[in-house]
Amino acid sequence: MNHLLSIEDLDREAIERIIAQAERFSEVSDREIKKVPALRGRMVLNLFYEASTRTRSSFELAAKRLSADVVNFAASGSSVEKGESLKDTVLTLSAHKPDAIVLRTPWAGAAELVSKWCSAAIVNAGDGKHEHPTQALLDVYTLRRRLGQIDGASIWIVGDVAHSRVARSNVLAFQRMGAKVTIAGPPTLIPRGIEQLGCEVRYTLDELPSADIVYALRMQHERMSETWVPSMREYAAWYQINARRLTARQILMHPGPVNRGVELSGEVVDSPQAVITAQVEAGVVVRMAVLYELLAGAREPRPAADRPADRSTMAETSVLGGSPSR
Amino acid sequence: MNHLLSIEDLDREAIERIIAQAERFSEVSDREIKKVPALRGRMVLNLFYEASTRTRSSFELAAKRLSADVVNFAASGSSVEKGESLKDTVLTLSAHKPDAIVLRTPWAGAAELVSKWCSAAIVNAGDGKHEHPTQALLDVYTLRRRLGQIDGASIWIVGDVAHSRVARSNVLAFQRMGAKVTIAGPPTLIPRGIEQLGCEVRYTLDELPSADIVYALRMQHERMSETWVPSMREYAAWYQINARRLTARQILMHPGPVNRGVELSGEVVDSPQAVITAQVEAGVVVRMAVLYELLAGAREPRPAADRPADRSTMAETSVLGGSPSR
Amino acid sequence: MNHLLSIEDLDREAIERIIAQAERFSEVSDREIKKVPALRGRMVLNLFYEASTRTRSSFELAAKRLSADVVNFAASGSSVEKGESLKDTVLTLSAHKPDAIVLRTPWAGAAELVSKWCSAAIVNAGDGKHEHPTQALLDVYTLRRRLGQIDGASIWIVGDVAHSRVARSNVLAFQRMGAKVTIAGPPTLIPRGIEQLGCEVRYTLDELPSADIVYALRMQHERMSETWVPSMREYAAWYQINARRLTARQILMHPGPVNRGVELSGEVVDSPQAVITAQVEAGVVVRMAVLYELLAGAREPRPAADRPADRSTMAETSVLGGSPSR
Repeated sequence: MNHLLSIEDLDREAIERIIAQAERFSEVSDREIKKVPALRGRMVLNLFYEASTRTRSSFELAAKRLSADVVNFAASGSSVEKGESLKDTVLTLSAHKPDAIVLRTPWAGAAELVSKWCSAAIVNAGDGKHEHPTQALLDVYTLRRRLGQIDGASIWIVGDVAHSRVARSNVLAFQRMGAKVTIAGPPTLIPRGIEQLGCEVRYTLDELPSADIVYALRMQHERMSETWVPSMREYAAWYQINARRLTARQILMHPGPVNRGVELSGEVVDSPQAVITAQVEAGVVVRMAVLYELLAGAREPRPAADRPADRSTMAETSVLGGSPSR
Repeated sequence: MNHLLSIEDLDREAIERIIAQAERFSEVSDREIKKVPALRGRMVLNLFYEASTRTRSSFELAAKRLSADVVNFAASGSSVEKGESLKDTVLTLSAHKPDAIVLRTPWAGAAELVSKWCSAAIVNAGDGKHEHPTQALLDVYTLRRRLGQIDGASIWIVGDVAHSRVARSNVLAFQRMGAKVTIAGPPTLIPRGIEQLGCEVRYTLDELPSADIVYALRMQHERMSETWVPSMREYAAWYQINARRLTARQILMHPGPVNRGVELSGEVVDSPQAVITAQVEAGVVVRMAVLYELLAGAREPRPAADRPADRSTMAETSVLGGSPSR
Repeated sequence: MNHLLSIEDLDREAIERIIAQAERFSEVSDREIKKVPALRGRMVLNLFYEASTRTRSSFELAAKRLSADVVNFAASGSSVEKGESLKDTVLTLSAHKPDAIVLRTPWAGAAELVSKWCSAAIVNAGDGKHEHPTQALLDVYTLRRRLGQIDGASIWIVGDVAHSRVARSNVLAFQRMGAKVTIAGPPTLIPRGIEQLGCEVRYTLDELPSADIVYALRMQHERMSETWVPSMREYAAWYQINARRLTARQILMHPGPVNRGVELSGEVVDSPQAVITAQVEAGVVVRMAVLYELLAGAREPRPAADRPADRSTMAETSVLGGSPSR
């Protein structure tokens, strides 16, 4: 695994491997000292063309817990604003020789393009409406922790599928893990032909009680000037997940940030069925696992081997050993 | 001490303890290598809902000098702008398991609320017009270094008390340390009932010569569209601290940034009476002391004990030992 | 060398020393672990009054590769916006005792002023239209790597010289290294009296084929509302470096970011003559060399000597030794 561009590139075995690594890292997150020296001396560059402090800080924390150095490069306020092309920006930044570039852009396919322009490992942190693979992986991880296994589970993804990169990545990942996925929402927000991914489509929530997991998507306030739905109130009346629609045995997920009162009622956000905070928590350990897989795993199978001069390395490269990062 | 929310929560002994710890850290600041490994592997999250590069960078430096990792989370450009509530933001961020959250918000009482929602140690770095406790502590520290002791000193706090969180914290802290505090300024900028804090109130500077310490508050240019004072010129005529009003034996303090020509004349800013730079300098060591008190002191009395696998820890946990941070 | 304010302050020997140090650091950049512990425990403060993510991130990377801590202080969103003077900002920040301040401002001479106000080493990262010395040093470094030596080479600097701090620093540096420099561009964009620097001036590109190196400057889109040139199209017709004007034996340089289709055609940017990416790459190692020269070299000739308590220091202070930074 050289890059993480899309869930499409991952088979079940690869997903299982990342999940298992994340499980090991979750033990680190419970310690007093939450760092391991696994990626000491490596440089992770966060290149964000869209503001997303949540995703950016999750990757930043993941990298820092692995003792990597992080440089944040926000496209606003940079030469990007002076009209520089994505290609020139990437060529410039890769001259800095980062080990990994975490990339968020509004353009579908950008992560894949960038992976052809430079030698760093590329992590797609969202490319337009296309994919957001680490979100899907952290959702799989969260479900595995809660359910043990996902095979055979019925997962409903509800809401604005058309504008959601999360939806696309999650349909693919949940299916890889053996779940049966149903997409539900107003016809204006369900892309035509989405069934080709292998999922079912519903335009009402009538059959929602059959779901084991309800995954609500975020409604984009800012897009509502476009006339995708008559109003937020109208949307909520038909598709909001609330106490009336959510049963006690179902699990409720949401990629955050939640619009309370729109796609979710406040009461279900705070209900025991909700695993929304667990999803955020999973974000750090899953991203640690992805960075570790890309930078320590594939490229440097035995990290200690090529650092003979550092006498203390042998003891430290046990990633999950007792030794805190120094 | 689990949080630092308000000076009200601190008795004199607690303040003395922080001051004493800051004194020890000030030796570190004079070294070539200004770091100690006291909080290695800990994560400090700066959550700022108001731009304040000064306070933020002071906390950032303090954390880094203790070898903690720092993640800055500016509310602008984040999901906060997408309408997320403070509670959801805090729940999300605490899923990242920071050891401390340094919080600056425009809302009085926010820090206390947040301390109930998550397990991290909360440091109030300003909550609306309510409190700014580390400012008060660094001011106490600065005076102690200059005067030896504060007991019995007469301190005048002059200016826009109504809009100042600094004023409120400082009245409390100076009084705890035995000083006699007088508040002075135009009646429109002195909140009614402030005497209940135990201070005196004056509406002119006629008795200013009796003060040992003159503490000028910052006038908020941006608020002058509101008609609190007729004009900056009018304010300066009545309340500016200048060479005519400041005596040679007085100490001049200001929380920064100074409006030269408004609350202070340029000449007094640069005078030997001014300890404004010393206050900034104190900011880093006092914030180091606060973070250390919260993260190393209360929660982990003997930090070495639970890190047996790290053989070098024993030597390093002497916070002020000769070993620079690695 | 206490500061890097201007190329004027550097004789050929000083430039050679920095270049040689950068060459040694370039070996570090090719390693798996790109860090050395040379400036561990030192604090570098990036104080930027103009947005420049490229230059800022290049300095940030350089400092981190030397294991220094970095604090970024962007003037926007800070007390600077509240009207604080440069002097007060610098006095405040130097109370934090940074070891170096990397300063970018729109004001010619600001770096020199600041160097008089505080004890930190000042690195001028651009002061208005005056100088940008690390750009010149990295350009010299790039040419040395490509050509072996610069003595006797003919270098043409083409474009908007009037608004360019790069031009001024580069004329000086290239001449110090023995090159013959010609300035070329429209008369409105060539400052009067520039010949006094010792360079020739041309208003057309007729003699461009005689150049060994063509150094194109960036046209500032944003300034074209001012009527320096009739239009970008008109500028390009007369002064764009394109395949018709660039010969196969010439080297093409540009400080970035490039306006494709304005000062350079897309085809020459991607041509083998272009060393633009090499320039960016040189930026990190040259800035490492500058920081090392300022912080490890001059001030602490034998860094190990005053840190006796740290037993591992002796082995680590071999800057380019095999031991990765921990």
